[in-house]
Amino acid sequence: MSKEAEGWRAAIMACLDASGSEVVSRLRAVELAGTWRRLDRDGRHRFLKLLAHEFGPQPEAIEQAIALWQIADKTGAKIDAQRILRRALRPPYRRLFTQFNAVPDRVKFLVDMRADLLGIASQSPELRALDDALLFVLRSFFDFGFLEMQRISWDSPATLLEKLVAYEAVHAIRSWEDLHNRLDSDRRCYALFHPSMPGEPLAFVEVALVRGLADSVQRLLDEDAPVGDPATADTAIFYSISSPQKGLRGVSFGEHLIRGAARTLHRDLPHLDTFATLSPIPGFRVWLKTSLARMGNSFLAGESSHRAEFDKIVADREAVLDEPLAERLAEPLRRLCARYFHVTRSDGSPIDPVARFHLRNGACIEAIHTVADTSAKGLRQSFGLMVNYRYDTASLEANQEAFETERRIAAAPDIRALLAGT
Amino acid sequence: MSKEAEGWRAAIMACLDASGSEVVSRLRAVELAGTWRRLDRDGRHRFLKLLAHEFGPQPEAIEQAIALWQIADKTGAKIDAQRILRRALRPPYRRLFTQFNAVPDRVKFLVDMRADLLGIASQSPELRALDDALLFVLRSFFDFGFLEMQRISWDSPATLLEKLVAYEAVHAIRSWEDLHNRLDSDRRCYALFHPSMPGEPLAFVEVALVRGLADSVQRLLDEDAPVGDPATADTAIFYSISSPQKGLRGVSFGEHLIRGAARTLHRDLPHLDTFATLSPIPGFRVWLKTSLARMGNSFLAGESSHRAEFDKIVADREAVLDEPLAERLAEPLRRLCARYFHVTRSDGSPIDPVARFHLRNGACIEAIHTVADTSAKGLRQSFGLMVNYRYDTASLEANQEAFETERRIAAAPDIRALLAGT
Amino acid sequence: MSKEAEGWRAAIMACLDASGSEVVSRLRAVELAGTWRRLDRDGRHRFLKLLAHEFGPQPEAIEQAIALWQIADKTGAKIDAQRILRRALRPPYRRLFTQFNAVPDRVKFLVDMRADLLGIASQSPELRALDDALLFVLRSFFDFGFLEMQRISWDSPATLLEKLVAYEAVHAIRSWEDLHNRLDSDRRCYALFHPSMPGEPLAFVEVALVRGLADSVQRLLDEDAPVGDPATADTAIFYSISSPQKGLRGVSFGEHLIRGAARTLHRDLPHLDTFATLSPIPGFRVWLKTSLARMGNSFLAGESSHRAEFDKIVADREAVLDEPLAERLAEPLRRLCARYFHVTRSDGSPIDPVARFHLRNGACIEAIHTVADTSAKGLRQSFGLMVNYRYDTASLEANQEAFETERRIAAAPDIRALLAGT
Amino acid sequence: MSKEAEGWRAAIMACLDASGSEVVSRLRAVELAGTWRRLDRDGRHRFLKLLAHEFGPQPEAIEQAIALWQIADKTGAKIDAQRILRRALRPPYRRLFTQFNAVPDRVKFLVDMRADLLGIASQSPELRALDDALLFVLRSFFDFGFLEMQRISWDSPATLLEKLVAYEAVHAIRSWEDLHNRLDSDRRCYALFHPSMPGEPLAFVEVALVRGLADSVQRLLDEDAPVGDPATADTAIFYSISSPQKGLRGVSFGEHLIRGAARTLHRDLPHLDTFATLSPIPGFRVWLKTSLARMGNSFLAGESSHRAEFDKIVADREAVLDEPLAERLAEPLRRLCARYFHVTRSDGSPIDPVARFHLRNGACIEAIHTVADTSAKGLRQSFGLMVNYRYDTASLEANQEAFETERRIAAAPDIRALLAGT
Repeated sequence: MSKEAEGWRAAIMACLDASGSEVVSRLRAVELAGTWRRLDRDGRHRFLKLLAHEFGPQPEAIEQAIALWQIADKTGAKIDAQRILRRALRPPYRRLFTQFNAVPDRVKFLVDMRADLLGIASQSPELRALDDALLFVLRSFFDFGFLEMQRISWDSPATLLEKLVAYEAVHAIRSWEDLHNRLDSDRRCYALFHPSMPGEPLAFVEVALVRGLADSVQRLLDEDAPVGDPATADTAIFYSISSPQKGLRGVSFGEHLIRGAARTLHRDLPHLDTFATLSPIPGFRVWLKTSLARMGNSFLAGESSHRAEFDKIVADREAVLDEPLAERLAEPLRRLCARYFHVTRSDGSPIDPVARFHLRNGACIEAIHTVADTSAKGLRQSFGLMVNYRYDTASLEANQEAFETERRIAAAPDIRALLAGT
Repeated sequence: MSKEAEGWRAAIMACLDASGSEVVSRLRAVELAGTWRRLDRDGRHRFLKLLAHEFGPQPEAIEQAIALWQIADKTGAKIDAQRILRRALRPPYRRLFTQFNAVPDRVKFLVDMRADLLGIASQSPELRALDDALLFVLRSFFDFGFLEMQRISWDSPATLLEKLVAYEAVHAIRSWEDLHNRLDSDRRCYALFHPSMPGEPLAFVEVALVRGLADSVQRLLDEDAPVGDPATADTAIFYSISSPQKGLRGVSFGEHLIRGAARTLHRDLPHLDTFATLSPIPGFRVWLKTSLARMGNSFLAGESSHRAEFDKIVADREAVLDEPLAERLAEPLRRLCARYFHVTRSDGSPIDPVARFHLRNGACIEAIHTVADTSAKGLRQSFGLMVNYRYDTASLEANQEAFETERRIAAAPDIRALLAGT
Repeated sequence: MSKEAEGWRAAIMACLDASGSEVVSRLRAVELAGTWRRLDRDGRHRFLKLLAHEFGPQPEAIEQAIALWQIADKTGAKIDAQRILRRALRPPYRRLFTQFNAVPDRVKFLVDMRADLLGIASQSPELRALDDALLFVLRSFFDFGFLEMQRISWDSPATLLEKLVAYEAVHAIRSWEDLHNRLDSDRRCYALFHPSMPGEPLAFVEVALVRGLADSVQRLLDEDAPVGDPATADTAIFYSISSPQKGLRGVSFGEHLIRGAARTLHRDLPHLDTFATLSPIPGFRVWLKTSLARMGNSFLAGESSHRAEFDKIVADREAVLDEPLAERLAEPLRRLCARYFHVTRSDGSPIDPVARFHLRNGACIEAIHTVADTSAKGLRQSFGLMVNYRYDTASLEANQEAFETERRIAAAPDIRALLAGT
Repeated sequence: MSKEAEGWRAAIMACLDASGSEVVSRLRAVELAGTWRRLDRDGRHRFLKLLAHEFGPQPEAIEQAIALWQIADKTGAKIDAQRILRRALRPPYRRLFTQFNAVPDRVKFLVDMRADLLGIASQSPELRALDDALLFVLRSFFDFGFLEMQRISWDSPATLLEKLVAYEAVHAIRSWEDLHNRLDSDRRCYALFHPSMPGEPLAFVEVALVRGLADSVQRLLDEDAPVGDPATADTAIFYSISSPQKGLRGVSFGEHLIRGAARTLHRDLPHLDTFATLSPIPGFRVWLKTSLARMGNSFLAGESSHRAEFDKIVADREAVLDEPLAERLAEPLRRLCARYFHVTRSDGSPIDPVARFHLRNGACIEAIHTVADTSAKGLRQSFGLMVNYRYDTASLEANQEAFETERRIAAAPDIRALLAGT
């Protein structure tokens, strides 16, 4: 074993040494965390592999605990044996992760460590098990109950605002002017925070207060458009949701954030009656392209008269910006898109990841718009189409249940009509 | 099964139902928590028993997972089997406890529920296992890394101050004047808080800033004594430590709090050079009484000339307040007390619980004082004797290690001399 | 001139020296303020006299400015001359007072200095002029626009709460339990603060939320009485108003505070429909006693059949606690009291100072109660009678105007009936 | 009189009407302030003129008070007469200004009103007198003692930061990146605030922490320059001071702010030993140009060999950016600049307004740099020259006094040498 590894091993064992006090263990963990911070990417990977391979559960201890469980006959003995077995399965590195919670930047350290770990977790079963343990600890530490939802506004510190700029994942923020526009009086932005990671948003949602369903993200983001009056708005459009902490993959915040934001909006602006997203359709173009290639006209069915035009927009993304063409294809594209939302994976849920997320939350597909996102990304993903998922408090729970048990997809009459038309 | 139990069971299953979203589960948990809040003591016990007996781990699932583990041969398969076994051992009620974290009073709900559970946990192995699970969740939620130490002063809200009055466990606070005296300019009070339980101290320590080691708690608590000048003090006396949350039994805060308070004091008042407690000796009198009864003079050895006087103070607690007697017995009592601290349990640690706590933390026994606590409690516990445990940063870690590995008790030369004299 | 006076004089002149910068002047004022702080009562009086006699306006300068004004003929010259005359009349000590605003305890220093000055202001015209100047500065510094009204509750710092205990001027607070009762959920307390004097209330009002008009202060202050439900209360009773800062005599806060508190209560508890005081009647007993002595039965008129009983309660304050007597005298006393409120000073306003205050604010006399304040003070001032002044938003301004212009006293029909009956 | 004027007059009289309560007056003032807010620029000017002409002091009242003063013979009567005369001189509009302090945006209203008034104050003596009164009120309200100095950093709200961008008067902030650079870890920014105008800086100063005196503002503002380490800096350079509130002209904040910022820096970074500005020299180029034109070579004296080059840079501002020329003229320009600082107005103080400000504060002229501000403004004002004024705590007060009494200009030996060389 290398000298470096020997050093780490000794430091890890000193942290885990049960004879010392927990306070001392934590002081040692702080030192070890300092060592980690100074490592480069490769060094961190070596460290994580050492951890995964040498500080996991001991098979002999599991073996013995199983033997104990198998001979236990009375309830009490059975339960004691379960306790011992559970302990034998608990990997020492999980305790180490917990101890890192006392370092100066607290949970942030663990979140960053996991971001490093995710980069190599797929390389071996031991590393995947290490990731299991770290995710287990993070799930507990980032439990909903600890999170605070706060409004972010132009009155927030610039240190926080520049994070929005860096973190926005859906529609990139181009400048401080763009940001200011997104925080204007007819906009809202809400974020989830953990008390040990102040100023570091776990997830945030951007909302526009408008009249009627928004059908174009470019219009929402137009800095020169007049500022709307929140007092006359009837609809809250959630047009961007980001979960920027890579190290928290697998801890989901989206549903909690959307529901919390809607509740707050409803309380502060009781005249709002519609809550909906304006969402991308990431897989639509690829699906159409692949299907066309594989099945040709048979796939298009009723739309086959537009075959040439479809070929054109599949070949040239910009083509759909041509107005007459866009107009001719508007209905066919919307019909195909409605169909696309009903294409499912083996588990019966839609292949579109954004649809999956919102339908699981109980939202319904409310409207499909063409020429709604004319950015390069929008054209590449979906020929510029976007969709409104509507969050209707009254039907959320029923939709959710129907989706989970029967894979029924909630959709507005318009959408069902489109579907019938294909 | 009773109708009540049927209702609870259905509600619990609705919370645990994995097909619904976590947000929905939490909303259901909020309702269930409301039901719980309205139950009386007996109702709560019935609820906890239902939980313990019906929502623990499933033996069949464990059995199957073990079988899987035993046939797994490759590393990957072995690790997968461990994961499955771990899951099988994870009791459903643990998930429910986590879900309760989203109720309006957040973790406080769990802490209070555990206080109820502790009242009946000893009644069955299932209830003990339930308590294991709840303690597991609480230990994670109340991890050191989440706690904030705050100073409590006369400038704190009265709602918080009245909790000190209610919670002080060592030397009861008699009035607001007594409290004011304990928060005066020559005093400090520090408490640990959890961000989800603001205004509710998890543990607090009261400190007097004095010159030299304090040798009488009554003098410290004398409201009419002149207020000292913190600028000329050289010693911080930790004269009372309380951990008032019953439901957090088994989650230890004391060492963390003492170390944190000492660190803060050292930073704010760098001229302080001694950090020590003035502590009760809860088991001294009973030990002496029992030993005398069992062994008589042979127990007293060198002190046997005082046999009659010892009989007197054992029989009549107030007797030791007689000054001439107190003076005659001062040295014999201090010698016996030094001996008492070295009387150990089967695990080699002192029978005195307070000594055990401070020695485990690395403190040393610095001085023993007679006529130090003349309250009824002080006389009953230890003939009025008290002890200073000294926290010397330089030797804490070495003391701790020596105590943990060799059960060596750190003591000042004076104490060792007393011991040699017995 | 004494050496002490020489020193002060030089220090004052250094502060006022216009050639130095204002920052330097303020630094010198801080030093001078330190000197002042260390002076005893007599020293402070000597200092104030020096200030009054040596740093007032210069008659020669006034003389010259007047001459200038008298020869000025054009508008511009006239206005310039006014400016010069105004400056000549501005006493140097006023500038010094302003400079003291930069000392560590800021405006508090001036407030405390005025408290000292008020003790001797009546001794000479120069001291009265000095007080004019200090009051002028304080009125500007404590302008309404700078004050903040805050709610005081059991959640406020103990340092603030103990000031309530010390400052309450109307119904003394006997203990922390009494205080807690006054801050319970069916009570409110509001105070005015200046941003430069945080934690130091300028005026505070205690309010009870009840059903119907309160008619006994002892019942309001009864700690054992059940706590009322603010949700079902319809009346806010302002039962105590204190302006504890002696040095701010002549700067009035009462009306502003009552109106602000009523506005806040109305916003937070919109179901409250009555806002009224429960007030003492400080001069009633002395008035009745003196009038009886001077005019005998002719004064009593219709009540003369009760002459002996009146003589009795005038001679023996406790006598009115005798129930049958109290009952017999109830109506006669209420009638006399109604009459008392209409006895006026030379300026046409009532001789009762509390009545004057509330009537000036636009309140009306709503009800008179016997056996309403049975404390020694209540008996001494008014045979235990108290009065409700009602603040009815709709009629405040009209009442105010009628009182100011015609000295019309607003009174409820009941009170007018009592008056008619005398 | 117009209907508009009639309406204003009635509203003003209602505010001033002494018979009503102050609370009522303020409510009326709030309404009047609303009217004012809705007026356009011309309307506001008409309003101010009405105020100036109809609500100033009454000459008859002054006349009478003077008569009273002239016949008063005893001290008491004299002082009473002064009081009456003072009151007669107090213009009613001053009281109205005070009443406006209770409007929703508090003192900000008065500050904005004064900004409007300043635009027309020069038009008549009455308007100048109105401005006197408003300035009198503002000076009292914005007394140093009420101001709070706060650090502004990248952690401040964007609403505040965008005001810095708008308000910076010396070196314009070009972008958010420029702003971020000015708030980086080797920079400090401090601002003065009034508690009734939160978020609205009255004055702010930008500071760079460097090693040695800074000699180029472009280097300080270079966003690509590496960030310095405040721990190794020995010098604090105040490179920009702005007082953005137009309505507070005549209320000076600069000296107070610089001294406060220096005190805070000294406390937080005790290793700083030099506090100096890097300041523009606004009048240097015009002075040189005019002098050359008027006096030619006789003006240049020892520098006359450079006559042609001076003519060149006077004619063409950019010429001085030519490196060989800049080098040749460096010393001659510095010598002339040292001479320029000693050119005085009739009152003996320097004609350069920035020099006047800093010398009055007790600073000394420490160093003169060429090629120090190569912006268009820097070239236009001073051929790119800048100057360091040094604030040396030990000598500030002596310098100040020498400047005020003897007009002696404090200058470092280098500067005196330059002067001797001319």
